[in-house]
Amino acid sequence: MRRAQRELSEGILLTDQYQLTMAHLYFRQGLHRMPVQFEYFYRTNPSYGPHQSGFTVLAGSGSLWAWMAEARFTEKELSYLRKQTGRNGKPLFHSDFLEWLSLEGNFEQLQIVGVQEGRVAHPTVPLMAVQGPFAMAQILETPLLNHMNYQTLIATRAVRMHQAAEGRPILEFGLRRAQGYGANPGVRGALVGGADASSNVGISHALGFDPKGTHAHSMVQAFMAMGGGELEAFRAYADVYPDDCLLLVDTVNTLESGVPNAIRTFEELRKKGHRPVGIRLDSGDLAYLTLKAAQALDAAGFSDTTIVLSNQLDELVIWQIISQIREEGPKYGLEPTAVIKRLVFGVGTSLVTSKGQAALDGVYKLTAINRHNKWLPAIKVSESPSKTVNPGAKKIWRLYDKRGKAIVDVLAKEDEPLDELPELHLHHPVDFSIQRKLKKKDLSRIEQIWVELPQSGPDSPLFDTIEQMRRRKDADLECMYDGVKRLVNPHLYHVSLTHELCELKSQLVSQARRV
Amino acid sequence: MRRAQRELSEGILLTDQYQLTMAHLYFRQGLHRMPVQFEYFYRTNPSYGPHQSGFTVLAGSGSLWAWMAEARFTEKELSYLRKQTGRNGKPLFHSDFLEWLSLEGNFEQLQIVGVQEGRVAHPTVPLMAVQGPFAMAQILETPLLNHMNYQTLIATRAVRMHQAAEGRPILEFGLRRAQGYGANPGVRGALVGGADASSNVGISHALGFDPKGTHAHSMVQAFMAMGGGELEAFRAYADVYPDDCLLLVDTVNTLESGVPNAIRTFEELRKKGHRPVGIRLDSGDLAYLTLKAAQALDAAGFSDTTIVLSNQLDELVIWQIISQIREEGPKYGLEPTAVIKRLVFGVGTSLVTSKGQAALDGVYKLTAINRHNKWLPAIKVSESPSKTVNPGAKKIWRLYDKRGKAIVDVLAKEDEPLDELPELHLHHPVDFSIQRKLKKKDLSRIEQIWVELPQSGPDSPLFDTIEQMRRRKDADLECMYDGVKRLVNPHLYHVSLTHELCELKSQLVSQARRV
Repeated sequence: MRRAQRELSEGILLTDQYQLTMAHLYFRQGLHRMPVQFEYFYRTNPSYGPHQSGFTVLAGSGSLWAWMAEARFTEKELSYLRKQTGRNGKPLFHSDFLEWLSLEGNFEQLQIVGVQEGRVAHPTVPLMAVQGPFAMAQILETPLLNHMNYQTLIATRAVRMHQAAEGRPILEFGLRRAQGYGANPGVRGALVGGADASSNVGISHALGFDPKGTHAHSMVQAFMAMGGGELEAFRAYADVYPDDCLLLVDTVNTLESGVPNAIRTFEELRKKGHRPVGIRLDSGDLAYLTLKAAQALDAAGFSDTTIVLSNQLDELVIWQIISQIREEGPKYGLEPTAVIKRLVFGVGTSLVTSKGQAALDGVYKLTAINRHNKWLPAIKVSESPSKTVNPGAKKIWRLYDKRGKAIVDVLAKEDEPLDELPELHLHHPVDFSIQRKLKKKDLSRIEQIWVELPQSGPDSPLFDTIEQMRRRKDADLECMYDGVKRLVNPHLYHVSLTHELCELKSQLVSQARRV
Repeated sequence: MRRAQRELSEGILLTDQYQLTMAHLYFRQGLHRMPVQFEYFYRTNPSYGPHQSGFTVLAGSGSLWAWMAEARFTEKELSYLRKQTGRNGKPLFHSDFLEWLSLEGNFEQLQIVGVQEGRVAHPTVPLMAVQGPFAMAQILETPLLNHMNYQTLIATRAVRMHQAAEGRPILEFGLRRAQGYGANPGVRGALVGGADASSNVGISHALGFDPKGTHAHSMVQAFMAMGGGELEAFRAYADVYPDDCLLLVDTVNTLESGVPNAIRTFEELRKKGHRPVGIRLDSGDLAYLTLKAAQALDAAGFSDTTIVLSNQLDELVIWQIISQIREEGPKYGLEPTAVIKRLVFGVGTSLVTSKGQAALDGVYKLTAINRHNKWLPAIKVSESPSKTVNPGAKKIWRLYDKRGKAIVDVLAKEDEPLDELPELHLHHPVDFSIQRKLKKKDLSRIEQIWVELPQSGPDSPLFDTIEQMRRRKDADLECMYDGVKRLVNPHLYHVSLTHELCELKSQLVSQARRV
């Protein structure tokens, strides 16, 4: 796509047409500056077919702030809106509205509170509340969802892969099969979730990470077509990258050609005083090949080399590979832990597209409007009760038991001092008849998980770094029960409403049904 | 993400690190200008779980040409590459290589032949052959795959939805749950595949399409929270958009509130001389609600209004809705065809993320190198025979039977004049023992499906329009047997190698195994 097309489509017009037609209607009705509150939440944890997640890790907000800070209706954008006509051939948007967009059509007046990037999140819990002028809060819906849904999806997947890999490095390799330029925010999500680096050059540099890579089959093929062989290709690589020599060993035959040629190349490097990095396996039975290659490398005195694995890996495949190595290692005279400790996982399509679950079902719903300086709760009743929005301004709390583990996220009305009550009366978020009481003395911590966002602008040194987000993620994971973190059939983490919020919701639902 | 970050990550650094390290190696070895040929093909048709496609529709090349035409190593890109160091702390890329990139690091010297955008394509058939200097043909791998794999995936899905919808309009609504900015190339793919329009404002304008939209629940909710009701919201909308009035009727209760309020609003519009557009149903049993709404609209004299359906639609859901309307329409005193003819389908996540199959497995493989003005075939042997690349320079042919239907795509050596032979000797692409002979007299057409690409630059009036691509797609679909187009369990379309190409491949495989 042309640069100009990318710029136009990634600026403030990265939104849905109906956001603009509604903003125009609010303008005509004099409602465009009315303060409103929208909330962002998602409904279900990602499920990848045979396995599912018991939580998510929130990502995307930093990208969203940076996007919001620059998004403007400039003459370029307005010229397109000006030209669009309705069925009657007249301009769809009136010129006074476009004039207003050019002056106030930015996101500077929006205030956002919510959960910080990198934190663990759960379904139905509001993760962000956007307050501000109706028209601009409305236009923000689509870009907010686009940023948050995708990066949260990918961060969550990266966490799972990292878990399966028992902390061994995860490299993101997915650009070639990613969903277009979505690859780039995808890499950011992967890094927040704990991927160590990416092969994607541009976005890695843009985010301050060194891109990683080895070489491809084509290099070896070219040397073979010229009448040489794999060994010549390896030697050429070692010659250019004597201290970064990581060789792909499966172009011809992994065990009969690739590994012996790699070892020969490594020996030559060693003689010249260099330390080879390792090999990459990209096809076949990866656990078996790892063990055989480790044996050969050990025998040649290269037991400190890395073995990078790639080829359609996901968390289950990584899990399987590690289990197999653990089980079969001793048969090959290898200490399994030592073998596992030299592994690095290159993950492509499954991570960057979140194979099996390509979207997070996050939504952005109007929960309150402010008339004459008073907040009025807004509700949307759905025929399926689980889809009925939790109304009004609120606060979100996370409760920890005496062992320091998080046990429930609680949605409360804004003025409920949960941390001051001796006992909390909680309801199931859909079936209100399911309820329980929690005593404060049985809890170790009552945490308000919403903070003001963004805490500072994208160019401020206070702006969150990916490293900070990763630390938040690690801290939250540490406070979760293992059952919730399980890769398959995780325990259900509880989300509850306070008794007071339940009552407000019931009352508004009855009112709405009477309209 | 900041604009500067988007620009950096969507320019020439939209590639994998190993493409750069290999290009650097070719430079060091004096191979960077050696002409080579890479081919693009995919291995399997998309399979969405319970259903799968029997073909794809190629998309993305126009975006790729436009990207290639502008992609350059400017000082901005080079400054990042210059700073990157290896493990020894020295620069990873030598300065003479970076200097060369600044001078010749563009795609102007690459020649591309292949299948035109919009045409029907099949697995294992080379769809593009890139010839030119090794270093730049190598760097192109990742961006080419990124553009082609995703847009082809989405174009194919749009074709399927269009088929299920029996030609009724498909609107792309997926931006909010798309994979980041990938939404934008996704919209382009959807349009190539036959989606009529998109709600995504920026990319629609960038591609010369009017974005489409209605209004959201939040607008109705806001009027309700202010003490008004759905009817007030509808009237406000009708007031601003009297000739574009399409009302979302499920915020409160579709049949008891939404449809009656919409009809009342439409009656008021009619009195003022306007023609209402229709309603949108976004939840519940869409076929049943369509029939009930159609009844009510007909009774009020609005039988020419549109009914837009949305809510997690995909090709199977669309198919089910149309079947149900066809079956149950008469029970409601409705002519099913008339009801179907007023439908429009708004498709979100399933289309833009290709739910169930989030990536096409397209690859880009070295097939030949040119030494001393002679093309030498290159091969990569895989332990799985279906992954062994078809070597050498070649031509691709499509054969049509006497009924004018396409029956097989044939990979041939470059110098085989398939259209001049009285009989064609074809082999199964993997199991060479399966073979057959086709007589020219039994064929109506022998078409060479590769042409020179791009036929002209992105700013030329000769550059393909999306309309042209859609016509190509329609023409190709017309020439396909219904069995191959089936939404579920499609027939297998044949792809064959000529006898001569088989012999070359067998010979190279044996050679490679001996290395």
